[in-house]
Amino acid sequence: MGLSNYLARIQFDFGALALLPSELTHLGIKRPLVVTDPGVKSAGLLDRLMDTLAKGSFSTYADTPPNPTEQAALQALSIYTDDDCDGVVALGGGSPIDLAKAVALLATHGGNLKDYNVQTGGSEKIGKIAPVIAIPTTAGAGAEVGRACVMTLEDGRKCDAVNLNLIPQTVICDPELTLSLPAGITAATAIDALSHGVETYVSNQENPPAEGLALDCIRRVAGNLEAAFHEPGNRQARWELMAAALEGGMVLQKGLGGVHALSSPLGELKLHHGTLNAVLMPHVYEFNRDVAAEKYQIIKQVIGLSSQQDLGEWFWQLNQKMKMPENLSSMGVSKDVLPEMAEKAARTHLSMTNPRPASVEEYISILEQAF
Amino acid sequence: MGLSNYLARIQFDFGALALLPSELTHLGIKRPLVVTDPGVKSAGLLDRLMDTLAKGSFSTYADTPPNPTEQAALQALSIYTDDDCDGVVALGGGSPIDLAKAVALLATHGGNLKDYNVQTGGSEKIGKIAPVIAIPTTAGAGAEVGRACVMTLEDGRKCDAVNLNLIPQTVICDPELTLSLPAGITAATAIDALSHGVETYVSNQENPPAEGLALDCIRRVAGNLEAAFHEPGNRQARWELMAAALEGGMVLQKGLGGVHALSSPLGELKLHHGTLNAVLMPHVYEFNRDVAAEKYQIIKQVIGLSSQQDLGEWFWQLNQKMKMPENLSSMGVSKDVLPEMAEKAARTHLSMTNPRPASVEEYISILEQAF
Repeated sequence: MGLSNYLARIQFDFGALALLPSELTHLGIKRPLVVTDPGVKSAGLLDRLMDTLAKGSFSTYADTPPNPTEQAALQALSIYTDDDCDGVVALGGGSPIDLAKAVALLATHGGNLKDYNVQTGGSEKIGKIAPVIAIPTTAGAGAEVGRACVMTLEDGRKCDAVNLNLIPQTVICDPELTLSLPAGITAATAIDALSHGVETYVSNQENPPAEGLALDCIRRVAGNLEAAFHEPGNRQARWELMAAALEGGMVLQKGLGGVHALSSPLGELKLHHGTLNAVLMPHVYEFNRDVAAEKYQIIKQVIGLSSQQDLGEWFWQLNQKMKMPENLSSMGVSKDVLPEMAEKAARTHLSMTNPRPASVEEYISILEQAF
Repeated sequence: MGLSNYLARIQFDFGALALLPSELTHLGIKRPLVVTDPGVKSAGLLDRLMDTLAKGSFSTYADTPPNPTEQAALQALSIYTDDDCDGVVALGGGSPIDLAKAVALLATHGGNLKDYNVQTGGSEKIGKIAPVIAIPTTAGAGAEVGRACVMTLEDGRKCDAVNLNLIPQTVICDPELTLSLPAGITAATAIDALSHGVETYVSNQENPPAEGLALDCIRRVAGNLEAAFHEPGNRQARWELMAAALEGGMVLQKGLGGVHALSSPLGELKLHHGTLNAVLMPHVYEFNRDVAAEKYQIIKQVIGLSSQQDLGEWFWQLNQKMKMPENLSSMGVSKDVLPEMAEKAARTHLSMTNPRPASVEEYISILEQAF
C-alpha cells in the first residue's frame, strides 16, 4: 500500500477507496457528509463509495453544479448542520472538492464566502476548518491537494478563498476510479497535469522540491498518456496518470506561467481548461524557449528525448496523437476577443511567474499564433 | 526568493539566513534558544546567524555533542526555561537539529526522553511541540525535514522518538552556509543524499510524490557533485546539492533498503554514515538489480546514462572520483564482525522495504563482497 505525507495525508493505490472507513476514523469523523455531482453518481462511483460505509452512518449531497455556487454550498451546509455531520468527503473532480471545502469552511467559521475572498484579504482569516477527505475521480487538475476554493457567489461574481488550511487533510487516490474515463477526457485532463508540470518547472521562482515533483509529473504523462488513451483499461497507465495529476497539483505553489495566464480568461468562454492548455502550450513554449533553455533541456532528458529532438515539435505531435483541436479558432474562439484576453492575461498573477515577462502585445501575438 | 510548503515551510535561496527574523515573527517566537555545536561555531556560522538578530533578544547553547545526549538536552532545556524562551533555532547538521527537537519536546510535554521512545509506543503521545526552525549547514542527511529525534540516554542506550510533530515547522536552506565545506565532507554527505534517493526510489512501497523527489535528488547529485568536489566555491553546484539533500530527507518516509540496513549497525563502530553508504551502494545494487530493473532503468534515464552504460559501474566510478574508500576493510572494519552486522541488518525495519528480501546469509555475502 502507499501512504505519503506531504501537503496532505495521501493514500495512493488500486483499491484505496476501501480505506475510507479507517481514514474517517483516523480524522475522528463520526458522520461525514459525502459531496459529489450527478455525473459521478450516474457513473456508479457514489454507489461504490457508499458500499464501503455502514448504512445510515453518513449523509449525501449529489447535486454539485459544474461551476459550484454559494447557493449549492448553502444547501449542502444545511444538510451538514441538520444531520450533525462532523466532516466532509468529496468524491469527484474540482467542483465537488471545492464545494466540500466551502461547506467545511462555513460550518466552522460562519459568515458568507465573500468574507474569505483572497482579493479583499479575507483568506487570511481562515483557520482550521472541518476535516475534508478528497477522493478524485479524474486524473488532471490536482484539486485534491489544492489550497484554493473557487465558488460563484449569489450575485454571479467568482470568489477565490486561498489558504493552506483549505487543503484536504486526507486524500484517497484510487486509480480504479479512472478506468472508465473516455479517451477524450483522459487526454485533456492529463495534458492539464502536464501543463502544470511544464509551467511550474520553468517558472521564475525557486522551489527545489516543486521542481522535482514537476519533472516527475512530466515524465509520467509523457510515458503513459498514449497507453491510457488507446487502452482505457490499462491499469499501469491509469496509475501513472493519477500520480502525475497529484504531483501536478502539489507543484502549483511554485507559480504557473503564460499558458495558464491565457487559459484562465479564455475559460470564461466555457471552453475546457485542459484542452485550452494543450492548444496554447506549444506557442508559449516558443515564446519562452530561449529564456528557459537549460530547463527545457532537462525536461527533454527526463522524458527521454535526444538532444537533436525538438521539445516544441513533441508538444505538437502529442496534441495530434491525442486528437486535440489544432487551434483556438477550431475551438470556436472568435478573433475579436483576442485583445481582451491578452489584456486579462497580462494582468493576472499567473503571468508574473512566467520565465519571460510578457506584455499585452506579446500575448496578442501568442494568441494570433495559436488562432 | 524561494518558498515551499510540503512537510515544512521551507525558505530556500542564497542569503536565506537573513530571513530568520521574519520567520521567527511568522511563528510567533519572541525569544528563541539558538542551538548549535562547537564546529559550526568555530566555522563562524553562529556569528553570522547572530548578526541577523537584535542583541539580547535570544539565548544560545553551542555545546551539542556529536551523538547528542539527553544530558546535553537537559542543559539546553534549563537555559530555555530560565530565559523564558518560546522556540528553538537549530543551526548545524543532524546533531543540533535533533537536540533542538528534544528541547522543544521536553519543554512542552515534560517527562524524560524515554517516555517518547518509538520502540515502546511512546512516540504516539507526541502532540504539538514548541516551534523549531532548522537551518542546515551541510548538504546530506536531510534531518531538517526529518520526523525522528535520536538521542543517547543517560544509561548509554539510544532512544528514537518518531512523530510527524517533530518535523521542524520552518526550514531555512541557505547554500551560502555550505560554501566552505571541505571536499571530503562534501562528497560523503552528498553520496548520503544520493543513497536516500536511490534506496527510496527502488523501495517496495508505493508513494508517487516520494518517487518524484527521489529521482530529482539523484539527478541533482549526479549532475553537480563533481563540480562541488573540485571547486568548493561553485555556488550553483552548492545550491543543487543542498536541494538534493532536502529532497533526500523528504523521501525517507517511503522506506529505505539494504544499504541503510547495513550502514546502520556498521555506524555503531563510529564510521561515517555517508562513507559507509558510498562503499555499500554498488554491492546492494548488484543484489537488487534484477528485481528492480525497470526502476534502475529510469534512474539511468534521469541521470543521462545511455542504455548501454551500466549503473553499477557508474556508482563505482563516482566513488573513485570522490576518493571514497574502496571497501570496508580499508575503513578499518574487521572481518569477524560481519556476521553480527548481517544479523542486525536483517532485523532492522530498514531491510523490510528493500525491493528484494535479504536473509542474514545474503547480507553476509553482500558484506563479504564489500569487504
